[in-house]
Parts: sequence; structure tokens; C-alpha cells
Amino acid sequence: MTSLHIGLIGTGYMGKAHAIALHAAPRVFDLPATPVCELLAEVDETFAVRKASELGFARATGNWHELVADSRVDVVDICAPNFLHKEMALAAIAAGKHVYLEKPMALNDADAAEMIAAAERAGVKTLVGFNYVRNPATQLAREIITNGEIGEVIHFRGRHNEDYLADPAKPHDWHTFRETAGAGALGDLGSHILHMAEYLTGRAIKRVCGQLQTVITERFLADGSGTRPVENDDHAQALVHFDGGLIGSIETSRIASGRKMGLAYTVTGTKGAITFDQERMSELKLYQQEGPSGRRGFRTLLAGPDHPDYAAFCPAPGHGLGYNDQKIIEIRDLIEGLAGCRPLIPDFRQARRINTLIEAIEHSHREGGWVELGTA
Amino acid sequence: MTSLHIGLIGTGYMGKAHAIALHAAPRVFDLPATPVCELLAEVDETFAVRKASELGFARATGNWHELVADSRVDVVDICAPNFLHKEMALAAIAAGKHVYLEKPMALNDADAAEMIAAAERAGVKTLVGFNYVRNPATQLAREIITNGEIGEVIHFRGRHNEDYLADPAKPHDWHTFRETAGAGALGDLGSHILHMAEYLTGRAIKRVCGQLQTVITERFLADGSGTRPVENDDHAQALVHFDGGLIGSIETSRIASGRKMGLAYTVTGTKGAITFDQERMSELKLYQQEGPSGRRGFRTLLAGPDHPDYAAFCPAPGHGLGYNDQKIIEIRDLIEGLAGCRPLIPDFRQARRINTLIEAIEHSHREGGWVELGTA
Amino acid sequence: MTSLHIGLIGTGYMGKAHAIALHAAPRVFDLPATPVCELLAEVDETFAVRKASELGFARATGNWHELVADSRVDVVDICAPNFLHKEMALAAIAAGKHVYLEKPMALNDADAAEMIAAAERAGVKTLVGFNYVRNPATQLAREIITNGEIGEVIHFRGRHNEDYLADPAKPHDWHTFRETAGAGALGDLGSHILHMAEYLTGRAIKRVCGQLQTVITERFLADGSGTRPVENDDHAQALVHFDGGLIGSIETSRIASGRKMGLAYTVTGTKGAITFDQERMSELKLYQQEGPSGRRGFRTLLAGPDHPDYAAFCPAPGHGLGYNDQKIIEIRDLIEGLAGCRPLIPDFRQARRINTLIEAIEHSHREGGWVELGTA
Amino acid sequence: MTSLHIGLIGTGYMGKAHAIALHAAPRVFDLPATPVCELLAEVDETFAVRKASELGFARATGNWHELVADSRVDVVDICAPNFLHKEMALAAIAAGKHVYLEKPMALNDADAAEMIAAAERAGVKTLVGFNYVRNPATQLAREIITNGEIGEVIHFRGRHNEDYLADPAKPHDWHTFRETAGAGALGDLGSHILHMAEYLTGRAIKRVCGQLQTVITERFLADGSGTRPVENDDHAQALVHFDGGLIGSIETSRIASGRKMGLAYTVTGTKGAITFDQERMSELKLYQQEGPSGRRGFRTLLAGPDHPDYAAFCPAPGHGLGYNDQKIIEIRDLIEGLAGCRPLIPDFRQARRINTLIEAIEHSHREGGWVELGTA
Ligand SMILES: NC(=O)C1=CN([C@@H]2O[C@H](COP(=O)(O)OP(=O)(O)OC[C@H]3O[C@@H](n4cnc5c(N)ncnc54)[C@H](O)[C@@H]3O)[C@@H](O)[C@H]2O)C=CC1
Ligand SMILES: NC(=O)C1=CN([C@@H]2O[C@H](COP(=O)(O)OP(=O)(O)OC[C@H]3O[C@@H](n4cnc5c(N)ncnc54)[C@H](O)[C@@H]3O)[C@@H](O)[C@H]2O)C=CC1
Ligand SMILES: NC(=O)C1=CN([C@@H]2O[C@H](COP(=O)(O)OP(=O)(O)OC[C@H]3O[C@@H](n4cnc5c(N)ncnc54)[C@H](O)[C@@H]3O)[C@@H](O)[C@H]2O)C=CC1
Ligand SMILES: NC(=O)C1=CN([C@@H]2O[C@H](COP(=O)(O)OP(=O)(O)OC[C@H]3O[C@@H](n4cnc5c(N)ncnc54)[C@H](O)[C@@H]3O)[C@@H](O)[C@H]2O)C=CC1
Repeated sequence: MTSLHIGLIGTGYMGKAHAIALHAAPRVFDLPATPVCELLAEVDETFAVRKASELGFARATGNWHELVADSRVDVVDICAPNFLHKEMALAAIAAGKHVYLEKPMALNDADAAEMIAAAERAGVKTLVGFNYVRNPATQLAREIITNGEIGEVIHFRGRHNEDYLADPAKPHDWHTFRETAGAGALGDLGSHILHMAEYLTGRAIKRVCGQLQTVITERFLADGSGTRPVENDDHAQALVHFDGGLIGSIETSRIASGRKMGLAYTVTGTKGAITFDQERMSELKLYQQEGPSGRRGFRTLLAGPDHPDYAAFCPAPGHGLGYNDQKIIEIRDLIEGLAGCRPLIPDFRQARRINTLIEAIEHSHREGGWVELGTA
Repeated sequence: MTSLHIGLIGTGYMGKAHAIALHAAPRVFDLPATPVCELLAEVDETFAVRKASELGFARATGNWHELVADSRVDVVDICAPNFLHKEMALAAIAAGKHVYLEKPMALNDADAAEMIAAAERAGVKTLVGFNYVRNPATQLAREIITNGEIGEVIHFRGRHNEDYLADPAKPHDWHTFRETAGAGALGDLGSHILHMAEYLTGRAIKRVCGQLQTVITERFLADGSGTRPVENDDHAQALVHFDGGLIGSIETSRIASGRKMGLAYTVTGTKGAITFDQERMSELKLYQQEGPSGRRGFRTLLAGPDHPDYAAFCPAPGHGLGYNDQKIIEIRDLIEGLAGCRPLIPDFRQARRINTLIEAIEHSHREGGWVELGTA
Repeated sequence: MTSLHIGLIGTGYMGKAHAIALHAAPRVFDLPATPVCELLAEVDETFAVRKASELGFARATGNWHELVADSRVDVVDICAPNFLHKEMALAAIAAGKHVYLEKPMALNDADAAEMIAAAERAGVKTLVGFNYVRNPATQLAREIITNGEIGEVIHFRGRHNEDYLADPAKPHDWHTFRETAGAGALGDLGSHILHMAEYLTGRAIKRVCGQLQTVITERFLADGSGTRPVENDDHAQALVHFDGGLIGSIETSRIASGRKMGLAYTVTGTKGAITFDQERMSELKLYQQEGPSGRRGFRTLLAGPDHPDYAAFCPAPGHGLGYNDQKIIEIRDLIEGLAGCRPLIPDFRQARRINTLIEAIEHSHREGGWVELGTA
Repeated sequence: MTSLHIGLIGTGYMGKAHAIALHAAPRVFDLPATPVCELLAEVDETFAVRKASELGFARATGNWHELVADSRVDVVDICAPNFLHKEMALAAIAAGKHVYLEKPMALNDADAAEMIAAAERAGVKTLVGFNYVRNPATQLAREIITNGEIGEVIHFRGRHNEDYLADPAKPHDWHTFRETAGAGALGDLGSHILHMAEYLTGRAIKRVCGQLQTVITERFLADGSGTRPVENDDHAQALVHFDGGLIGSIETSRIASGRKMGLAYTVTGTKGAITFDQERMSELKLYQQEGPSGRRGFRTLLAGPDHPDYAAFCPAPGHGLGYNDQKIIEIRDLIEGLAGCRPLIPDFRQARRINTLIEAIEHSHREGGWVELGTA
């Protein structure tokens, strides 16, 4: 069996999740190649060395340029803040590496386009980390929709709300500035639900009408040097119109008190509906217009071995997968994708779509009205 | 104790609910006047007589014009389909009667304006039956918001979805034609959630951007004489902007498979949030940014005697109120309102607001963009 | 149409619920006779007169002996505390009245036996108020079980927990003394779940093994004259063995912090299961071993017009019934039962069963081990 | 940093879960020693080699006696069926290895005693795999109870129900025979909830009264050679009496249609209650008699970084842990326990308790009545 040598940049929230998943994935799945944790880059050498030991990487560097250039690295896995995605990805591509990148792909649509062009020119493969679509319960939702088990889809309602910035005393970090994050809640969380909307319905959004708002307009700087304005949206919402006539709505917030992992969707069809809440990530509720009307109701399906990818984790139903298990599935998708056993979804081209949608919603907000999009 | 003699027009779904509530209310509440079920009008004499016996009315008539003119009737209670509201209300007002009217008040905003003018000229009192705001759990929500227990409101998300027309084999009735119903789901169900939005937030909606859709475009006629187009919306949604900067969204559907009584709302504030679903009408969920963060979570408050109007029904908490109990509270509001003990809310002037909002959403849909409203 | 003249004794929690239901029932259901609120008895004249006015009774008395003897009273409706049930019922029976009695029927099994004998000798009809079995969702549960939709029943788990005495500062009232209440939680709440167990399974309990406990052993007297011991159980539990081999368990508490109306059951069969919680009294969850295993799950059935007795309240599903609606159905059962249109269930003979079971559990607790029962 | 070399026996359901956890744990936690996947034993050589490759073990053997004797193995991790636990553990102990063993520890109490004696004589360390107590939500439950946040515990209700043998067409496997499994549901699932009962309350069970039943008395043999009787219980229940007066009940089933991972408990205290269901393993519901009574209710706490062990998996609350994450925590406990940083809980001595309780319940069932136990 071949190996795929991974170079990881960034070891915060996502970097650690990737590391756990890289070590666990070969035990969970039967992979066509073994991911090897080759090299890790962080902001400085000492920190990188410590993190490499913790996260099980063979070597470390305090300079990510060394990582992308390293001859023993096959895949560059970028878990740095958004504003570094483009520079790092372009350098990795220039060095002929495949790129596995956290979402959102880029700060804006133009950057995303540039990254696609570079990757396609170089012939390297890419994958962007929209992990929630890999949750077995959500894969099941997609399967149910695709099979026509709820008829033809007529409405999509989705939201991704959290409250990590609900407290006005929480200081600025890279999420709250335009040049480090791009959009606010819309980019950080909204990107997931926008991706989900098209993934689940199988339809492209073709018109949007959006509203953005910064509610906590000023925050303290983390270094105690006073306050500065928040530069992007705290919450946002949009009406959407999909290809084929289907309508829906999208909502996102980082100040939605009480919501910790509030990615949720309801997809209504002509013959039934499904509803899901990521705070109960192993439950999908399904309603079908079938059987006697006095016996109809939403059925709680607990993820189990009959559903996509669950059996590899546990042979018993309802035992529960966790957040990191989604990343383990993503690693499987990465490895199989690089080995040519399955398409890499979403690659840069598909993931750019999210940047396009975000910009359309921002544009709609500024102009005040509907904005048309090209299809995906 | 004085009496208030009620003349009821229409004995379908709502007519029966009103009759039950009229008989029960004086046992539940200590009222300043006793409602007397005086006269009932239906489409013909025989049917009216039968219904009067069933619903406990002293007299019956097959001609509603007789009812509004009857000298022993103090209040005309109109539970006929929407298209009859205006004509009946104007006749009742002309006869100097108070009017208790089912929602939506009128087929359109102009009719509503005419009805207000007539009522105010005649000096009669009016009440429109938006019963869901009378549910103790929802009154509690309002109390929590008004007290500032969730801080300042920053977002409202509301929907009222049902599936009573999800089956394409369900034939036309008065709900599906423009001239008998006015708007479709937006008028029938959307009216409740629009009213709720302003009731809960205490803010007027000042801009809307809406989308309407008729999904099942053709239905059978009930008499078997073929099919005819459906003339109003099956589902609708809107972004809204309230006075004071607060944003939100509204959704409504009569074809939302699986939803039977899907009036639901989430109100997010700067310090907490509440969330509610009328399918669990005696539960309100409350989150507050208080206490140690490891002990925070949505709390399920079961309606009980500590909450508005519950104790009159039952001294024990969590025992559950039902749909009709909301109408009993509404009757209490009517009787106390007519006796001058409390304002009648919403009266025609306030209820017209809903027609105004519906038309604004329809207008926005036709024109494609935001529509401004005057404040309430 | 004939009338049935009701004499109500006691106007506390239950007395008011009965009065509301007596006024509402003829509007909800098409009854074979009209209940007339004839006479009301309370502890003294003044209070009785006030209550008669509030609760809509024609006449009042401060002496219940007058009520049972009154020639215009057909049915004596007893809503006084437990210790008065026997004396009042025997007097009513002696006067040839039918008796509608609140649960538990009597302080003990011997008294219940005496009451049955008297009623049967006199040829009067009786009904005991176990209202929770009249909830449409629970009637549906019974229907599902009876139809064999979950196969053969193999296990019953039931509880009725509340927390009305969880606060040790709550003073004594009639519930906490042996001679006024009989058993404690077991009599007050346990009686409901014991009745439910046999109602749902259609099987008689034939062996029990129980445990009782008084946790708050001393309470203040309401009049401030110091403390006295609590004389009956705060919580109790039992294993049960039904006729036909089926096993199960029963639990009850009046000090179960957090539970307000915690009557709940799970009935498991060879082909499925149902589960129910009275705090969500209009929801029944049903699981069936049917269809592809990846599509199985508990289905939430919202009570609606397809289920027993719901349609009389509301033509639309999922709109919710409340606690008092159960009493309205009970009044229907009373009136139809007295008119001979249906059996009165449970009558004294059937209701005594509960006293027998309570004593068996208490006996088992004292002796420490299993106790056999005769079948119902 | 030192290493701990693991020898794994058995690669079914649990063997794979252990392997995933052994690889992931050092990435999740900062461990005092690194577990090294040294040697794997299975029923034959070929299968063992394949499994070693899949599960990331360096070497393989078709003979577990070689594994326990292997000089490079420090810890023997036994994931074989119950009937092999004793023989394998005794051999490992004889070879001076530490033993990490799946639950239930042994087929019966006498065997468990023999294993303790051997381990203590040899001075090796032991841990038994009761993973559900390591779930952060359940650790939180314990913390809340220990802190007195719900007052003094007065009642425990627990169950562990699944439906893996609800289908009568499911053939025999090792679970259904006495000599390969010991007790049935009571041993397989009941062992978890019995352990949980004492873990959460911090009290030893001192009396039990139980009931066992085999509902599906005959099953097919997996090899098609006909049917044979089922030799142990399909479901069981018991009343329990804890040290200190606290009472409770236990229920377990492997034929509880609809339950997939139905370990659930409610712990009631004098000042509050907690309730938990492993099918929603990252949610704990907490009720406290605090604040205004109109604002009390069960609060849904989503596991997060403020709770035990969660932060190592994810810095964001409510993102969800899964079944295997519990095993990762267990591996941390194993490694830290062997390194002397924390006690190994439960070791053989503590885990034997479960066998003692199971036998007491079986004994109670046979004899019909209460059975006393020594304290833990
Ligand atoms: N898929 C998902 O569910 C999630 C995705 N993300 C995405 O992951 C990315 C990273 O986010 P977090 O992990 O939350 O951020 P973080 O702030 O926790 O971690 C970022 C890490 O990158 C390192 N870093 C910064 N500059 C660097 C440089 N020049 N060289 C090397 N390392 C550098 C930082 O030292 C830090 O360790 C973002 O794009 C974010 O949107 C984040 C959370 C969830
Ligand atoms: N507040 C709420 O939650 C609800 C309000 N409504 C409103 O109540 C009104 C009535 O709706 P439903 O009761 O559902 O309709 P329905 O169709 O069930 O009943 C209407 C009744 O009016 C009678 N009617 C029709 N023309 C009449 C005439 N010329 N004279 C006398 N009676 C006449 C009909 O015979 C029928 O009995 C509508 O405006 C509707 O929007 C309806 C359902 C729920
Ligand atoms: N079916 C159910 O769900 C429920 C049944 N009950 C049962 O109803 C019965 C009454 O209980 P509550 O209404 O809760 O009690 P309560 O204490 O609220 O009311 C009892 C009433 O009886 C009156 N009373 C006492 N002695 C009297 C006398 N000598 N003559 C006339 N009136 C007298 C009292 O003044 C009081 O108004 C009990 O047997 C109880 O077990 C109570 C609550 C719920
Ligand atoms: N902690 C928990 O939540 C759970 C614990 N368990 C426990 O784990 C143990 C194993 O159960 P499962 O994994 O479900 O069983 P399983 O039947 O899935 O796997 C047992 C494995 O042991 C192997 N094996 C059998 N005899 C062997 C031998 N002589 N030498 C080497 N390998 C041998 C089998 O080939 C098989 O791969 C049991 O004691 C069970 O009670 C099982 C499931 C969950």
C-alpha cells in the first residue's frame, strides 16, 4: 500500500481536528493509501515542535514556506485563518502539491477564482473542508431526497447559528476583521449552510435577497489596547431562489444566544419532509405522506449501520458519532479522492460557489434587492 | 351582573370553537358580564336550528341580516369565511352592534380601512380573533421579552406552516380562490405569525421583501365539475426589518408536509433567547446568559399557574392547555374589553395592520424587492 | 331531549374542572341528555353561594346532606377530599342517586367493597374519574395495542411523578395524613398509572413487589401550630407481573423535582413500542418493526381528528387538547353511560381494583416481597 | 516519553473501537506514555494478519497464548467474548501483564473473585471497560450530584434497553448461551446501568428484588442446523435499595423494539433532578429548585469545553462527541492509570461488584423476593 505524506499548517481548532482524524481514519476505513503525518508548520519553531509531538507529526517547522516546498510532502493541509488560505494554497500549488483546505476557501470570490486557475493549470487536486455534509445523518438526508422519498423538493429552510460572539466582552480575533476573515457570520458559518442548501437539494441557487447586520459594532482588542469597530456581519439572512423554481431561506448568526452548533435544516417535498439539527447530529426526522393518516408523523431516524459511512465506526445503531468523526470521513474522502477512487467534493471549483453566493448576498444587502447568480 | 348577548354567524371550525368558549369562559374566569348565546345564523333555517341546538344558542336564523338587526343581540360574532367579513361587519356596525370578528379581518387593506372608518364613526367596539397570542406560553414569552430578560431583541424568526393542502387530491374550497379568501397561506396562516412578530417584539415591521408561490397550480372542484387554477399562494416567505433596527424573517405554508400546527418562533436578544412551537403549545424554551457557562442551556418552561391566565384553568403546573382554551381567554378579553376593563387587542385598527403587511409582501413579490411600510 | 341534573360537592381543583366540563361538554359532543348544573355543596352556605355563581350552578347549599337528598338531583358528583368519598357516596346511593366520583374511590379496599355493595344493591350507576385514559393520545395508544400494531405486549413501564410536595416548606394539607388521604403519592398519583397499566395492556396485574418511602418525614401545619409527621408515602415503586406473563414496573412520586405532570408510559410489544409523556399530552410516539431497517424510528403522532374523540374539539390535527378537555370527554362518557349508550368505565367495581393494587403494594412493602392478587 | 505496548485480543465490535481509540487518544490528550499497538491476536493467523494491517498493529498472531507471553507486550487488552475473559486474563496476569478488559468482567461472581485474587497476587494493574461513565455529559451529571447541585439524592431510575435481539429471526450467537455469555440482557447491557447507578449516586446497592424473562425462548442456530433454546434473559428489571436509604429501579432489555442505545437515567434529589438519554449522548437535562418558580424548568446542557474532558476534543460547545470518543477517554484513563497519575476505575475489584449485583438479581428472581448484598 502506498502512503500519502501530509503537511499540516495551523494547529488551532481545526488543525487538531485534522490531526486526530488523520490518525484515526486508517483504523476506521479501509483506505487505498495511508496518510502519513509528515510535517507540521506553525508560527514559530518552538511551538511547531511542541505541536508536532502532541499531534503526532514526524517533523516540524516554524516557516510554512518550508513545508509547502518540502519534497516529502504530498498534500498540503491548510488549517490557518482565512486570510492565509490564498497565499498558502498558491504556494503549495506552485510546488506541485495537492491542497486540502479549510473553509471558506478564500476571502472573496476573485481570490477563489485565482486559486482555481492556479490549481487547474498545475493539475493538482483540491478538497475544501465542508465537514457537515459528511455526517451520516446528513448523507442520509441527501439519499432520501435523491431517491424521491419526499417527492419533489419545494422548500429549503436552513440556518447555521452559534453564539460564540454573543458576549460583547469577547474581544476581537481574526474573525471580526474584514481583511483576516472576509465576511463575518456569513463567511464563517453561513458558508456551511449555503453549501448544505445546494448539496441537499441538488439545485443551484440562482437568485438571492439578503440582509446583514453588525449588532455589536465595537469590541475590545485582545491586547488591551482599546476598542475597534467590528468590520463584518454578526448575523445575516437571505431569501433564495433555486434553479427549477424551488424557494427557500438561509440564516446565520454568531450572536444567537443559546445556539452552540445550530446548523439546522428543513427540506419540504411534495410527498414529505425531513428536518435536522446538528445539535442532535445523529438524528434525522422524516415525514412521509404514506400509510393511514392517523399513523403519520415525523419519524426519528437514529444514524446506524444502514446509513452511509456509519458502520465503519460502529456496528450498532444509535450509538452516536461525534464532530471529529465527520472529519474522519472527510479524510477518507480526501485519500480516496487523491487515489482516484471517488471525486473530491467540493474541490476548489465547487467551493468557490460559496464565495460567489456570499458576495451575492452582501451585494444584495448593499443594493437592497434581488441579485441574480450564474448557475454552479 | 349584566349580560352580553351574542349573535354568532357561521358554525364551521371557528363557529364551534367560539360556542365552546362562550359556554366555558364564565366558569373559567370571573367575568364582569355574562355572555349569553342569543342567536345563531347559518346558511339556511334548518341547518341554523340544528346548530343552535348543538351549540347552545337560544334562537336561530337562516338569514344573517336578521341576526345583525336583532334587538336582543349586543355583539355580532362573525365566523364566516373571509369574503363575508366586510359585508357582515358593516351591517353589524350599521345596526350599532359591537363586532367580534375572525381573522384575517378583510380580503384586503382597503376593505379593512373602510371597516375601521365605519366602526369608529359608529362608536362600536371591535375585536379580531388572533387567538395564538393568548396562549399562556406565548403571553409568557411576551412578558419575558418586555421585562428585558433576554436583553434587547435583535432577531425574530417566525413561521406558521401546516399541511392541510399538501395533498394535491384535496379539492378547492373557499381558501383557494382570490375572491373568497384573499391571500392564500399568507392570509390564512401568515396573518397569525405576522401578528405574532409585532406582538412579541413590540416593534412595527417597516420594510418587507417577500416571495410567494403556488406549487399546486390546479385542483379539482369539490362538486366534481373538473379542475380550476388555484388563485393564491401555497407558501410564502419574507425578510422583515422592524422599527428600531431589528431584523427577522417570516415563513408560511399550507403545503408543508408533516406540520399540523407549525406556528413557531425564535426571538433572540442580546442576553438570551426564547423559542416556541405551537405543536407543543404549553412549552416555552428560555436561554439566558446567566450563571456559570457550564450550566447554561435552554430551559423548558411548562405553562403553569405562575404564568398569565393559566391558573384560571388549573391550579397545577404543566397539566396542559389546549387550542380551545385560547379561545376561552379570547372571550374573557372580549367581555372585559366590552366592559371597559381592558383594551380590546387587536381591534380593527390594529388588525388592519396584518392586511397592510400581507399586501406589502404581495407587492414586494410582484415588484421584486423591498417595500417600505408606514409604522403601525 | 332529557336532562340530567347534577349535584356537585366540592369546588376546589377538581370541582372547578368538573364545572367547566359540564358546561362545555354539550357544545363539544352531541349528547343523549343535557347535564344541568342543578345544585352545589360546599363547606358553608356563603362559600357555596359564591361558588355556585362562579361555576354556573342554579342553587347552592352549605350542607352536602341536603344535596344528596335533593329531589331535583339525578347524579351526585363528588369532588371532595378522599376521606369524604365513602360517606358521601353511601348517602347518595341511599338516596337513589347515580354517583360520579373522583379518584381514588376510597381510602382503602374494604371501604371500596362496601361502596360497591351499596351501589349494586341500590341499582345506581357509578363512574370514577380517571381522566387520563380519556386523552385521545392515550385512547390511540390503547387502539394501537388492541389492534396488534406493536405485536403482543411484553413489557409495561409507567410512572406518575409530580413535585407538588418537593419543597419541604410546603405545609401539610389533607394529602399528607393517612386518615384524610389514605396512601400518599401512591394513592394520589399512583392510582392513575396503575389504572393506566391495566387499561393499556388489557391485562390484570397479578403479582406486585413494592417499595414506599416518606422522604420529608415532618412538615409544618398550615395553621402555624408547629410540625407533625407526614403519614403516607412521598414516593413508591413496584415491579408488577400481569396475567399472561407480561412484566413491568410502576413508579410514583409527589417529590420528583422538575416533574409537573409526569405521567408517562412505554409499552413494548413483540413488533414495536409506544411511548408517551403527559407533559406532551397530545403526542404519542410509535415504533414499528416495519419497512427497511434504515427507515425505522419512533414516529411522533400528533393527536388529530383521525384519533378517538379529537374531532369533536377541532377539525384540524395537532392543534392540541388540554387537561380540561379530558374531563369534557369524561362527562360525555358519564352522560352516555347513564343514558345506556356505553358502559361506565371504570365503575366502582373496576375502580376498586386500584385500591386493591395500592394495598397489595403497601402490603408487599411492609412484608418485603412479592404479593399475589386475584385477577380483576 | 515512555511507551506502553498493547496486545489486543479480539477484533470484533469492541476490538475495532479499542484500536481506533488507541490511535486517536495521544492526539486528543497529552498522555504520560504513548500506547504502541504492538501485537494483535485473533482466531487464526490469516485473519489476525489482515486485522493487524487494518487496525494498525505491528504484529499478529493466531494464538492468543503467544500474545500474553510476548515479551514486548506491557498490557493485554481483552476484547474477546465473555467466556474467554477469565482464561485470558489469568494467563496475562500469570505472565505479569497489566490487563485491560471488556465488560462484563466474568461469567459469574466466583470467576471474578478468582481473577481479582490472581491480579492482586501478581501486583498487576487492571481496568474494565465501562465506557459510558466516561461520556462528558455523564461525568457532568456526576459532578452536579457530587457538588450537591440537586441536593441529596433520593431516587435513581436507570435503564439500558436495546433491540438487537427483538427480531425472533435473528439467530443465536455467543450472547444467547449461558456458558458463553453468562447472564443475557442483564449481563450485556444491565451491567452498564448497574455500574452507572453506583457511579452516579456514589452509593452502594445493598438490596435488590429482580425479575428476569426470556421472551423469545427458541432461536435458530447460525449454521442452519435447527433451533435451540435461548439460555439467558431477554429482559430484566429490579427494585434497588442503596446504602443510606436511597431507592431506585433498574431495567434492561435486548428486545426493546425501537431502542438502539437506550441507556437512560433520571436522578432525583431533594433540590433538583437530572435526566439523560444516551441516544442524545451530548445532552444532560438539569432541573433546580432555584429562582422564581415561573422560570424553572429542565435546562438542556449541551456538552462543551466547560465540562469534563470535552475540551480535548473540540474547543466549541455543543459540537458533539460520539461513541468512540468515550473509548478515547477510557484509553486516557488507562494510560494515566498505569502511569500512576490517577486511579484505575473500575479495576477488577470494583468491576466484580457488577457480577455480584447480577447474581443477586438472578438469585432474587429465582427465589422470589429481596436479596441483601454486602456493601461495595
Ligand atoms: N470546518 C469547520 O467546521 C471549521 C473550519 N474552520 C476553519 O479553519 C480555519 C482555521 O480556523 P481555526 O482552527 O478555528 O483557527 P485557530 O485560530 O484556532 O487556529 C489557527 C492556527 O493557525 C496558526 N497560524 C496562524 N498563522 C500562521 C502562519 N503564518 N503559519 C503557520 N500557522 C499559522 C495559528 O497559530 C493557529 O494555531 C479557518 O479557515 C476556519 O474558517 C474553523 C472551525 C470549524
Ligand atoms: N383564529 C383561528 O385560529 C382560525 C380562524 N379561522 C377563520 O375563521 C373564519 C371561518 O373559517 P372556518 O370556520 O374555518 O370556516 P368553515 O368553512 O369551517 O365555516 C364557515 C361557516 O360559515 C357558514 N357560512 C357561510 N356563509 C354564510 C352565510 N351567508 N350566512 C351564515 N353562515 C354562513 C358556513 O356554512 C360554515 O358553517 C375564517 O375567516 C377563517 O380565516 C379559521 C380557522 C382557525
Ligand atoms: N382526576 C384527577 O386528575 C384529579 C383528581 N383529584 C381528586 O379530586 C378530589 C378532590 O381533590 P381536589 O379538588 O384537589 O381538592 P381540593 O382541596 O382542591 O378541593 C376539595 C374541595 O372540597 C370541599 N369540601 C371539603 N369538605 C367538604 C364538605 N364537607 N362539604 C362540601 N365540600 C367540602 C373543599 O372546601 C374544597 O373546595 C380528591 O379525591 C382528589 O384525589 C384531584 C386532582 C386531580
Ligand atoms: N463496552 C461496551 O460498550 C461494549 C462491550 N462489549 C464487550 O466486548 C467483548 C467483545 O464483544 P464484541 O466485540 O461485541 O464481540 P464480537 O463477537 O464482535 O468480537 C469478538 C472477537 O473476538 C474474537 N475471538 C473469539 N475467540 C477468540 C480467540 N480464542 N482468540 C482470539 N480472538 C478471539 C472473535 O473472532 C471476534 O473478532 C464482550 O465481552 C462484550 O461484552 C461489546 C460491545 C460493547
